[in-house]
Amino acid sequence: MSSKVQRFSEERERLNRLILSRDNLEIKRFFALDNATYRDGALDCKTKELLGLVASLVLRCDDCISYHVIKVKELEVNDAEFDEVMSIGMLVGGSITIPHIRRAVDLWEELK
Amino acid sequence: MSSKVQRFSEERERLNRLILSRDNLEIKRFFALDNATYRDGALDCKTKELLGLVASLVLRCDDCISYHVIKVKELEVNDAEFDEVMSIGMLVGGSITIPHIRRAVDLWEELK
Amino acid sequence: MSSKVQRFSEERERLNRLILSRDNLEIKRFFALDNATYRDGALDCKTKELLGLVASLVLRCDDCISYHVIKVKELEVNDAEFDEVMSIGMLVGGSITIPHIRRAVDLWEELK
Amino acid sequence: MSSKVQRFSEERERLNRLILSRDNLEIKRFFALDNATYRDGALDCKTKELLGLVASLVLRCDDCISYHVIKVKELEVNDAEFDEVMSIGMLVGGSITIPHIRRAVDLWEELK
Amino acid sequence: MSSKVQRFSEERERLNRLILSRDNLEIKRFFALDNATYRDGALDCKTKELLGLVASLVLRCDDCISYHVIKVKELEVNDAEFDEVMSIGMLVGGSITIPHIRRAVDLWEELK
Amino acid sequence: MSSKVQRFSEERERLNRLILSRDNLEIKRFFALDNATYRDGALDCKTKELLGLVASLVLRCDDCISYHVIKVKELEVNDAEFDEVMSIGMLVGGSITIPHIRRAVDLWEELK
Repeated sequence: MSSKVQRFSEERERLNRLILSRDNLEIKRFFALDNATYRDGALDCKTKELLGLVASLVLRCDDCISYHVIKVKELEVNDAEFDEVMSIGMLVGGSITIPHIRRAVDLWEELK
Repeated sequence: MSSKVQRFSEERERLNRLILSRDNLEIKRFFALDNATYRDGALDCKTKELLGLVASLVLRCDDCISYHVIKVKELEVNDAEFDEVMSIGMLVGGSITIPHIRRAVDLWEELK
Repeated sequence: MSSKVQRFSEERERLNRLILSRDNLEIKRFFALDNATYRDGALDCKTKELLGLVASLVLRCDDCISYHVIKVKELEVNDAEFDEVMSIGMLVGGSITIPHIRRAVDLWEELK
Repeated sequence: MSSKVQRFSEERERLNRLILSRDNLEIKRFFALDNATYRDGALDCKTKELLGLVASLVLRCDDCISYHVIKVKELEVNDAEFDEVMSIGMLVGGSITIPHIRRAVDLWEELK
Repeated sequence: MSSKVQRFSEERERLNRLILSRDNLEIKRFFALDNATYRDGALDCKTKELLGLVASLVLRCDDCISYHVIKVKELEVNDAEFDEVMSIGMLVGGSITIPHIRRAVDLWEELK
Repeated sequence: MSSKVQRFSEERERLNRLILSRDNLEIKRFFALDNATYRDGALDCKTKELLGLVASLVLRCDDCISYHVIKVKELEVNDAEFDEVMSIGMLVGGSITIPHIRRAVDLWEELK
């Protein structure tokens, strides 16, 4: 894992812990639901992460994209599959997604 | 095919023809690219349509959702798979997606 | 309650029941969380509904706006308070929110 | 003017009057600013309406798009210019804008 | 005030001055309206800032969120109230808001 | 060209090359279409770049805004024209666009 990826993951974990240390039940329930939603089901975990990735891409959230890029790499998505997810996001979401695709592809290469 | 679905598809076709009858090359190229993007590739056509569906859901476009719901039904996506796509879109996109999920589930039932 | 409001509420209920009759636990949990989030807490129910209303307005979802307009009317929000929520949504979200404000104000008047 | 366009314009006017009859100064100021922003300046009125049209298209608001389509037709924008605005909106905003472009082109033809 | 908050506020002020030094009346009027909209009225200033905060959160603008977080802290919003605004934004806007909530909570803690 | 602008342009070029070095035809076609769409046509190149700028502004993408700001500066858009594009984007897209306008105006001044 590159130091950039490690810093991203550690900062994400630190802030998630900060949020969950707070005394709000609805937020805790949302986080628990977030974890449950990507588990293997009728669709396997890999397909679900690809769905999360394309949703994050068209909504243009770099942190969410980075998280799912790391996940789909761990799940052994290959280059061609990754590119096709990018191409669908680019088509549906338009050229406004391209800066996010630039950073996603940069991270993807870094994860190799 | 129900009459509601038929009307939707016919109106969509009529307006697509109207757009493509116009004299703008970039628009024609975009439409051609749109068709090409969902073809079988490293990811199969079914997975790509599910990606298009979740992207349409989080961007909250009823016509786009309806189009992909019809497509994934034709591709024999089952109830549990469909619901999981809805649940990921709802989680990522929030309760603001629920009115669109209502209409998507209504259409899904109508297509049976 | 006007017939238009009644039709809106009945159709919303019918489709919610349809969604909840399906066999997906994450969707049910999201709906339960949706209900819990607007309950009286540190902020009272009225303030929370106003927050839900302005969020729905800037995200430009007519069904969500209608739902919260009906709710805040029941909670005895007055005209001046309602207009100030609209003005904040219009300022933050821009003129693109105006068509939704037109319909929200129309519904507000109808609820009197 | 077709009856469909007339109904759109009359309903828009009715609701604008309803909003402006209310007792909220910030909303009135926003409406006045909205009118002022599209007046001839360093950029002429036609260019400004095209800017308003493409902004409405990528934000995907049918009522706003319809309003600006009617305006640019009055300002004698021609077919090729109109199509190029649509193509830029489609490129920047992605295929999710296509349903709105369908309706915009349909209205454009109706205005001839 | 931490140095991070101070830098944010100073840079914001510098750029606001730069914008207002320019010769465009509509921009100046928009800024004046922005200030007027959050003043005490039928709703008090604190409620209005909470409305601005949740609107900024669901629209996912970090700078706008930071600005309103600082404001609501000054207005003595407490932890439980702040968390409930976050939970409503998270529910309405979905998991895509979570990276912004992470940064908002981090800033909130820093302001203590 | 300032060093900040140069870094932005070089990083953009590096990542575009990385994307185009990948083996996905749809992505290459989208990039080619992106270039074609802004060429002189019925609307001149300057008007098209202004349309791209306002679309990027209301969709709130800093990289896209920066790219078009640099372009319109090269095409000799003047201060008053630039400000009017900003004012239309601010009006249509709301105060949520202001942080992006701050950075756009900062870049605009830097380009002088």
